[in-house]
Amino acid sequence: MADIAPVLDRIDADLDTALERLFELVRCQSISTDPAYAAECRKAAEMLAADLSGIGFDARVAPTPGHPMVVGHDLSADGPHVLFYGHYDVQPVDPLELWEADPFDPAVRTREDGTKYLSGRGTSDDKGQLMTFVEACRAWKAVHGSLPCKVTILLEGEEESGGKSLPPFMKEHADELKADIAMVCDTGMWDRETPAITTMLRGMMTDEVIIHAADRDLHSGFYGGAAANPIRVLAKVLAALHDDDGRVQIPGFYDGVPELDPAILKSWEGLGFTAEQFLGQIDLSVPAGETDRTALEQVWSRPTCEFNGIVGGYTGEGFKTVIPAKASAKISTRLVGTQDPHKIRASLRAFIEERLPADCRAEFIEHGSGSATVMPTDDPIFAKAQAVLTEEWGKDAAFIGCGGSIPVVADIAGILGMDTLLIGFGLEDDRIHSPNEKYELSSFHKGTRSWARVLGAIGG
Amino acid sequence: MADIAPVLDRIDADLDTALERLFELVRCQSISTDPAYAAECRKAAEMLAADLSGIGFDARVAPTPGHPMVVGHDLSADGPHVLFYGHYDVQPVDPLELWEADPFDPAVRTREDGTKYLSGRGTSDDKGQLMTFVEACRAWKAVHGSLPCKVTILLEGEEESGGKSLPPFMKEHADELKADIAMVCDTGMWDRETPAITTMLRGMMTDEVIIHAADRDLHSGFYGGAAANPIRVLAKVLAALHDDDGRVQIPGFYDGVPELDPAILKSWEGLGFTAEQFLGQIDLSVPAGETDRTALEQVWSRPTCEFNGIVGGYTGEGFKTVIPAKASAKISTRLVGTQDPHKIRASLRAFIEERLPADCRAEFIEHGSGSATVMPTDDPIFAKAQAVLTEEWGKDAAFIGCGGSIPVVADIAGILGMDTLLIGFGLEDDRIHSPNEKYELSSFHKGTRSWARVLGAIGG
Repeated sequence: MADIAPVLDRIDADLDTALERLFELVRCQSISTDPAYAAECRKAAEMLAADLSGIGFDARVAPTPGHPMVVGHDLSADGPHVLFYGHYDVQPVDPLELWEADPFDPAVRTREDGTKYLSGRGTSDDKGQLMTFVEACRAWKAVHGSLPCKVTILLEGEEESGGKSLPPFMKEHADELKADIAMVCDTGMWDRETPAITTMLRGMMTDEVIIHAADRDLHSGFYGGAAANPIRVLAKVLAALHDDDGRVQIPGFYDGVPELDPAILKSWEGLGFTAEQFLGQIDLSVPAGETDRTALEQVWSRPTCEFNGIVGGYTGEGFKTVIPAKASAKISTRLVGTQDPHKIRASLRAFIEERLPADCRAEFIEHGSGSATVMPTDDPIFAKAQAVLTEEWGKDAAFIGCGGSIPVVADIAGILGMDTLLIGFGLEDDRIHSPNEKYELSSFHKGTRSWARVLGAIGG
Repeated sequence: MADIAPVLDRIDADLDTALERLFELVRCQSISTDPAYAAECRKAAEMLAADLSGIGFDARVAPTPGHPMVVGHDLSADGPHVLFYGHYDVQPVDPLELWEADPFDPAVRTREDGTKYLSGRGTSDDKGQLMTFVEACRAWKAVHGSLPCKVTILLEGEEESGGKSLPPFMKEHADELKADIAMVCDTGMWDRETPAITTMLRGMMTDEVIIHAADRDLHSGFYGGAAANPIRVLAKVLAALHDDDGRVQIPGFYDGVPELDPAILKSWEGLGFTAEQFLGQIDLSVPAGETDRTALEQVWSRPTCEFNGIVGGYTGEGFKTVIPAKASAKISTRLVGTQDPHKIRASLRAFIEERLPADCRAEFIEHGSGSATVMPTDDPIFAKAQAVLTEEWGKDAAFIGCGGSIPVVADIAGILGMDTLLIGFGLEDDRIHSPNEKYELSSFHKGTRSWARVLGAIGG
């Protein structure tokens, strides 16, 4: 088994240039939801393929009907074969005025207490996270001339925008992508000091509804009272989606929602999690989900229905007494157990249709979806990874749940038949998807060291 | 009594240049709600003051804390004194992509049936309407060298944005503005052939609520379920504002709402109004207001509560799984009888506050308000105006209600102690406040002739 110590030393010595490589990637405005940024997405993909080639991977930019994939192989080593997945696309940056600095001009910043962090869109989700793996590979190659195991890297450009191209791409390239285990770096630590392996992920179903009423915007003086108001119709429909106890009212919504294994529930109780502290950091205090569930259940093991955007009528400065022709909302559900995203989408749409007045119609726009996942934590690979993470961070690595959805994990299981080791170094205060996204310098540095150790442990 | 016939001839002969004067005014982008257009508002005011001076008025642009007023006097005639009010500001033009032509590049357009109309923002509301009065004065002066009665003209620049400067301006200049009767041209005809005097106007109260939850936008994966979602809170609150029968649930809302005089209700029945036809022209069919009221009552004599704008979270292309920090709505109520806008604003706000979860707070932005008005139709001046309108149009002029609110009418009554003769030539399909606003050429032409006749009748 090749020695890990010089690999870690190399990572320490190379930190500044590793940061410069990450920053060059962050400067690419690879916002995948907005077609205006398609060229920036391609640029990010090309930059990554070139970087992997430079390390010695057989890498290419592979076309899809949407943004391209980056695929790279280094299969020269003996030992097991690992498929690493990351995504180079990022969330939109609006509202831009809330950013303290240009989101695409990353920097290392130092807090009063001396801790350092990287600022900019994608420093955490997912450019910073995916580069921890790439940098770990680079160090292994630099020190030992080879990786400790076979590695295939797949980097997607549509994770933040529905990821429609990924499942067909996986199907078409299944032989090339199939490995012994998948690794994904798109999750978080338990806290600033405690590393974690995420073994439970909620699924997702995202949909958009547009309520149409009159054939034009109306003056509320002439028509107000008699004309159907789509904002009022939409508010009624959205308000009906939860009862007063926070339970989602979509028929069949809770089909396939399991009760938690008491052992897992008990281990969660040992994490010292409190709703006050969790919500306190975002200036809230009262859990808003099902009233008979703890806040940790609400975010890890219970399904939800959230409204992510709403718009209709005049929203500028001042007042315009208009009755709009339409109003729309973006709705997402987080799924657990065996909840079926397709059934839930159909049931949500029927729920809305049933509540429309005769004059209104609903138009729907389908966005992405994925089922929930629970990992087989008794696979020895989970114990190996847990051991080296504990070694690197000096604190026991935890098996945790995650409220977020990583649809690729369901696709890796369903299409490629593989389990996934979810190790990430994000923190809850990273503000991913929000203004002022950041990534801890320690996450980037020790994250790279962590992957170097995990690769070594699996290859050893 | 000076002869009206040559005045009408002069109006006919001068139509093309009158249109050119109106179009020059329409080209001013005097959108009062948006501070970016302040200079355009001032330009419109200066243009109008210069035009009035040119006719022989003693006219000036008078400053206010907001957009300026235009005030002009021609008091050389004997006879009663008339105060004419209009507004030179216009509504915003978004969504711009729905306009068939540049809203600020007006033109005369001809339909297949040969009828003509003027296209552009403000051609109807209120630049086209106010210019009918100015052109009538111009013709009287050109033909007879003087007006048939004393005329003061007051033109406002904030009617579409709350009109906050008007009441203090009226108070400060009450002596200068006081006259025997006010005239306002900001209302509609009964239909394309039937002129109308509006004797019943709904009042208005406009307010804006912003629901604040977490101190930043959140990722719904991490926080979804446990964190309060302001869109959900807002939807619940808005949905609670009407019951299933369309009755507004704000406590005390119906205080001061009178039952209609059976005689007026009967006269309305004679107008041949049908909900099918009224709503059919905007592609609707079912009256959306109180289920126990006719559609005509819903728009003329019953109060309403409407949502004119709503926004929160991600509203761009694609999907962003954010839980926003805030969500907001613009709410307006139309008022009748002696409903008190101030009490209703306070009651609405209390209604919202009572329904907030512990973690959320509501911020309110006050917009404009005004009480409802009913005119004394037994004043002989109403009969005189009705007679000459009937003469001009060849159809009996109707006394009608109006769902719209013209707060200045309440201010003229309250501050200056005057009644108002509301005569306007707008049509229901003028799309005021909407894309593709227009004004009938016949409204402009015969409207100018109508005012010339009304001035003559009052002066005679």
